[in-house]
Amino acid sequence: MSQQAINVAQKVALFHEHWSPRLVAEMNDYQFKLVKFAGEFVWHRHADTDEVLLVLAGEMEIGFRDGAVVVRAGEMYVVPKGREHITRARAECHALIVEPRGMVNTGDADGALTAPGDAWV
Amino acid sequence: MSQQAINVAQKVALFHEHWSPRLVAEMNDYQFKLVKFAGEFVWHRHADTDEVLLVLAGEMEIGFRDGAVVVRAGEMYVVPKGREHITRARAECHALIVEPRGMVNTGDADGALTAPGDAWV
Repeated sequence: MSQQAINVAQKVALFHEHWSPRLVAEMNDYQFKLVKFAGEFVWHRHADTDEVLLVLAGEMEIGFRDGAVVVRAGEMYVVPKGREHITRARAECHALIVEPRGMVNTGDADGALTAPGDAWV
Repeated sequence: MSQQAINVAQKVALFHEHWSPRLVAEMNDYQFKLVKFAGEFVWHRHADTDEVLLVLAGEMEIGFRDGAVVVRAGEMYVVPKGREHITRARAECHALIVEPRGMVNTGDADGALTAPGDAWV
């Protein structure tokens, strides 16, 4: 067991790649990942799980087929299971993601932006 | 589905009771709760689950029988399943907790500090 807390800001500073989530903690079969991104992701859905995003810096938009939600620093959002969505940010955005171990970041869409789920930082 | 993000700071400002967690989000069978506290909690353990604490303001100490971890604002910690612990804070501390639905805040200890698990803010 670690005797040190996880400093989220320090971890965020350790990597720069976009759309490339980095694990910082695991709890039961859930994972906490940091991600940096800018621009637009891909439309996708996660058939079996909700997904939590907590924005640490900047702001993002979660687009749905019938609307969108803006999530700013200090705000969180739960994307419901099965709901098609796309994430976008005009400028670089940093977020903490909570999702079950084994979840693929691009969901059912797959493709070039699919990232490994086990990269720790 | 809500079309609005959850503003954590705004939610924190809506209640003042110590050791009285308030739900802000649910993800699958997990819950995200805000809690404010000062002073010392009770020794307890959660036999079936890890517990995540992310400190939003102030700082806390998680005491174990063989040591302690300080968790400051912007830091998080995963208390391992089954590990006896106690939370303490000299001054008021605000934290976001992630835990499975139905988990009792006082674990196996029960007692006066046991809080309802379904109070939303």
